[in-house]
Amino acid sequence: MAELNFDVAQLAHIEIYTPKPDATLWFFKEILGMEETKREGQSVYLRAYEEFYHHSLKITERNQPGLGHVGWRVSSPEALERRVEAVKATGLGRGWIDGDIGHGPAYQLTTPEGHKMELFWEVEYYEPPRELRSSLKSRPQKRPTRGVPVRRLDHVNLLCANPTPNRQFFMEQLGFRLREQILLKNGSELGAWMSVSPLVHEVACMRDATGVGGRLHHLCYWYGVPQHLSDAADLCAENGIKIEFGPGKHGVSQAFFMYVWEPGGNRVELFGDAGYLIFDPTWRPVVWNEDELDPAVVWYGSPAVPETYFIYGTPNPAEQAAD
Amino acid sequence: MAELNFDVAQLAHIEIYTPKPDATLWFFKEILGMEETKREGQSVYLRAYEEFYHHSLKITERNQPGLGHVGWRVSSPEALERRVEAVKATGLGRGWIDGDIGHGPAYQLTTPEGHKMELFWEVEYYEPPRELRSSLKSRPQKRPTRGVPVRRLDHVNLLCANPTPNRQFFMEQLGFRLREQILLKNGSELGAWMSVSPLVHEVACMRDATGVGGRLHHLCYWYGVPQHLSDAADLCAENGIKIEFGPGKHGVSQAFFMYVWEPGGNRVELFGDAGYLIFDPTWRPVVWNEDELDPAVVWYGSPAVPETYFIYGTPNPAEQAAD
Amino acid sequence: MAELNFDVAQLAHIEIYTPKPDATLWFFKEILGMEETKREGQSVYLRAYEEFYHHSLKITERNQPGLGHVGWRVSSPEALERRVEAVKATGLGRGWIDGDIGHGPAYQLTTPEGHKMELFWEVEYYEPPRELRSSLKSRPQKRPTRGVPVRRLDHVNLLCANPTPNRQFFMEQLGFRLREQILLKNGSELGAWMSVSPLVHEVACMRDATGVGGRLHHLCYWYGVPQHLSDAADLCAENGIKIEFGPGKHGVSQAFFMYVWEPGGNRVELFGDAGYLIFDPTWRPVVWNEDELDPAVVWYGSPAVPETYFIYGTPNPAEQAAD
Amino acid sequence: MAELNFDVAQLAHIEIYTPKPDATLWFFKEILGMEETKREGQSVYLRAYEEFYHHSLKITERNQPGLGHVGWRVSSPEALERRVEAVKATGLGRGWIDGDIGHGPAYQLTTPEGHKMELFWEVEYYEPPRELRSSLKSRPQKRPTRGVPVRRLDHVNLLCANPTPNRQFFMEQLGFRLREQILLKNGSELGAWMSVSPLVHEVACMRDATGVGGRLHHLCYWYGVPQHLSDAADLCAENGIKIEFGPGKHGVSQAFFMYVWEPGGNRVELFGDAGYLIFDPTWRPVVWNEDELDPAVVWYGSPAVPETYFIYGTPNPAEQAAD
Repeated sequence: MAELNFDVAQLAHIEIYTPKPDATLWFFKEILGMEETKREGQSVYLRAYEEFYHHSLKITERNQPGLGHVGWRVSSPEALERRVEAVKATGLGRGWIDGDIGHGPAYQLTTPEGHKMELFWEVEYYEPPRELRSSLKSRPQKRPTRGVPVRRLDHVNLLCANPTPNRQFFMEQLGFRLREQILLKNGSELGAWMSVSPLVHEVACMRDATGVGGRLHHLCYWYGVPQHLSDAADLCAENGIKIEFGPGKHGVSQAFFMYVWEPGGNRVELFGDAGYLIFDPTWRPVVWNEDELDPAVVWYGSPAVPETYFIYGTPNPAEQAAD
Repeated sequence: MAELNFDVAQLAHIEIYTPKPDATLWFFKEILGMEETKREGQSVYLRAYEEFYHHSLKITERNQPGLGHVGWRVSSPEALERRVEAVKATGLGRGWIDGDIGHGPAYQLTTPEGHKMELFWEVEYYEPPRELRSSLKSRPQKRPTRGVPVRRLDHVNLLCANPTPNRQFFMEQLGFRLREQILLKNGSELGAWMSVSPLVHEVACMRDATGVGGRLHHLCYWYGVPQHLSDAADLCAENGIKIEFGPGKHGVSQAFFMYVWEPGGNRVELFGDAGYLIFDPTWRPVVWNEDELDPAVVWYGSPAVPETYFIYGTPNPAEQAAD
Repeated sequence: MAELNFDVAQLAHIEIYTPKPDATLWFFKEILGMEETKREGQSVYLRAYEEFYHHSLKITERNQPGLGHVGWRVSSPEALERRVEAVKATGLGRGWIDGDIGHGPAYQLTTPEGHKMELFWEVEYYEPPRELRSSLKSRPQKRPTRGVPVRRLDHVNLLCANPTPNRQFFMEQLGFRLREQILLKNGSELGAWMSVSPLVHEVACMRDATGVGGRLHHLCYWYGVPQHLSDAADLCAENGIKIEFGPGKHGVSQAFFMYVWEPGGNRVELFGDAGYLIFDPTWRPVVWNEDELDPAVVWYGSPAVPETYFIYGTPNPAEQAAD
Repeated sequence: MAELNFDVAQLAHIEIYTPKPDATLWFFKEILGMEETKREGQSVYLRAYEEFYHHSLKITERNQPGLGHVGWRVSSPEALERRVEAVKATGLGRGWIDGDIGHGPAYQLTTPEGHKMELFWEVEYYEPPRELRSSLKSRPQKRPTRGVPVRRLDHVNLLCANPTPNRQFFMEQLGFRLREQILLKNGSELGAWMSVSPLVHEVACMRDATGVGGRLHHLCYWYGVPQHLSDAADLCAENGIKIEFGPGKHGVSQAFFMYVWEPGGNRVELFGDAGYLIFDPTWRPVVWNEDELDPAVVWYGSPAVPETYFIYGTPNPAEQAAD
């Protein structure tokens, strides 16, 4: 057995597109309590109050919602070289850029279905202005008094026409470990949850029931405190934010979840629980079979999974067609 | 305006029937952490650990699940006389009994649709054995280390072919105040929530969509702590107890709710929140219209109300027919 | 035994004095999420988002912090007449005023130690502007997205050189029921907790260890959700608000409590729990003896009670002397 | 900069000594809901319900409480060889044993102050009996209905006459990263918190104010759900378990903590929060100075740190002297 690969260190940021930038910003700032660190061109950069880097979310105006790219930080300069070589060998590399606001040189690549990603090493740390400095020294800034503030970016879920080659790419080229998986009776994969850390996942690949693929299912921010999910649900209900599903508890990942659609159309998950953590270096992936789909998706909390959960993603061609 | 009537003081106990007494008892004792205080004949008496009287639940073996009776304690001997006179005038009185285990002489009556009830004044207080005495002196016994223990009986919900005359009976003969109400476009009542205390309701009358009426929709025990509802949901999911609906937050009563079916078939609601309390002596009832049914039933927490919610009650003739 | 007296219906509002009105307002609005409804003269009127009347807190600028007055709403016009007669007979009545912003004619009185109070019947209900209307129809306005918003005024605690005559006044003239009590070995009362509703108390009288008396120990706002107390503690710690004591759980009242000093100097308690409710019309008061003082004050949560808890109140002569 | 070392994978188990094995077992089983997996000789093996290995706690009868040993699982057989070589070079190795119940061959070593530890690779997984199998497939067994069940072992805290060489040993020989640290004005270390994973610490070295060193400060089990800590506090208060300190929130680690003394005398911490997680591969340790000791130890929750916190450990010579 090969030793574990720790080259990819963490999910560092996500860029999403939105056709309604003001409303999207309002949601992330006023309801989720995020902080704006920069505006440039058609983009605004945000971070959660417990995040140490310049930003974890880049919101860019576009005519359709969807995923811009996913940014991964590696464990060392040597790790970056190793991963770039591995990706290049697959033909999925796109080449280097000089960097973006908040981080240094980055190697661009895509998943087999075309989701854009970046690998980089150098980061810019956030420095709070004096009035935001916290006496709680592991907090990069004071806890906001606005909305129900999320604490950190948790994971991204990618809709794939076929999850399998995408999962293999994450595992083989980037060193992710398979943590949980749903298999259909015909042997095909409905979804795979993978991580490079004790988190159950930083990335999931789920089957796109529309067959389109290459889309965003959701990005997820983390509370870690169950009550905060109820509080966020209350604010969403008060303010006309569509709650698609939850609060409830997933079997997969054990997460206490809620899915909402931010005003720009992207699905955002909120995690209200710590879930469980995997420290076992010989972890045997949890495999859910088709007849266990119910507890896999909802351990408790909702009598039924809404149909949109399996077909809605961004961009959403059905909506475009309807326009 | 007449002065408020405080003659009925509180919901004191409920008797339910069960065709599976062992399984029903297991649920209330092992999952809900209730304490058995007495067995006699085909009945077992239970109480929640923060309840001061002998029991709040009487479980009686029968071939069908359903409501035995509802026991109300009055505010004084004089109040008892006044309420008995008022009931007698309607022809719904059944007469006096000498009492039952745990309370003194009781006047039996029914709602217009036949739900059995009792009014009484004298009660027997629970005395804990030495090993169960708590140093927390407002606790009648130590908090159990079994299950997720409920704290007290909260309310009962009665299915009615026509809620209106039943609501009027509670208001006019027994002094209940109308707190919330759902009205359909045709002017008829879908449900009414009433109380004699700052609780939003000790009793509700809801329309029985099957038209049968005279049945039990549910009885409710109270946690008051939101996390306990999630903990109870987890234990129910682990142990094969059907969660019909929730956890979620009702608009009506603002309760953080979950409905489960105990193994004998009766629906039991669990309240995970304090809800809101009504101290206003000139309370203007909250009226939800038909087009507000969604937020009235689910403020957040479930994408859809299960169909059973409006048609299932105990006894359940559909099930009998199917046997 | 006399029938219970329901003439006083509820604690409706409290007026406090503050030498630092801007800082005091900032605390109640930005940390506790309260809403301003009116400014007039040296006073600002605030309410919690689940309160139905015009205000529950009147903050008035003065050179010293302390209690302005306590406003009680009665159950009916007849109840008001009965209570006024009872108070007049004791010589503690001060006479009628035409009313204040938010309520109608009020009868002014004092406790035996001089705490000012008012009794009134007519109230003005709050009407939200369009943008604050909630679809949750039992909410008088949308839940704020500012701070950790409190839900309603809960109770007031009065420091008394001698609690006993003050307790007797509340019980005999105003109809309060004694719920809990701490007695010292010499037979004197350390404190008494009383209510006119199922709440354990709307008012408490506690011995002033300095012997001054006639002062405010604290006013209390209610969350009812345990996590909110932790969230509020976090915001207080971040923003330099002194947390004197807690979060922890009292034995008396079973409340999950925290005491902070608002910037103007008044002690404010926050309730994070539903506590327990008393529906029993023949409630036997819980009596804690001197050797049970520890669990009475702290059931769990703090290794020691701070000395200030028994000597600090507002106004605080020690501080004035030090100026 | 050297690449990070991932050779030690996780804290796998802890052995404690107890002079009162029955009472100690009662505490871990009835209050903390742990499961017994084996008894052999003077030892009993326990696990938390979300733990996948045979046990995380070995309780061994001895005349004094204290630490038996700490068991660390490594990331691979090669990692084991590398760590053993590194330890051998320091002279702190004790040699190989064939293994113990639940794991394979282990290399024994001590910290510079003599705390016993083991490194091993092979583990035995727990297999639940049929009636304990959970449909939640990432749960190795059903959630218990007994006590407030802990979910997993979190960390161990070692009292050291001088924390510095012990911290250096963990960092240099075993690959731990320094996460947080408290430094005194004279430049000496009061404590150091270190981890090999995103957890803030799996091990801490704290200064033993008695100067004895080589002792156990505490072991910690994890809930991850804040309310569970309050529930556990309630059960401890009910059942005479000494709560030394908390619930409260540490600055260091941001943990929502409570310290209790199990009946055998060992201090046990319970974690009610997810704390924060460190994914940054270039983490800059959080350093608290002597004048920041207050927020470092208590961010909120207790007005004062009990004196015992800095001087009590097991074994406790003061107690032995007193016998």
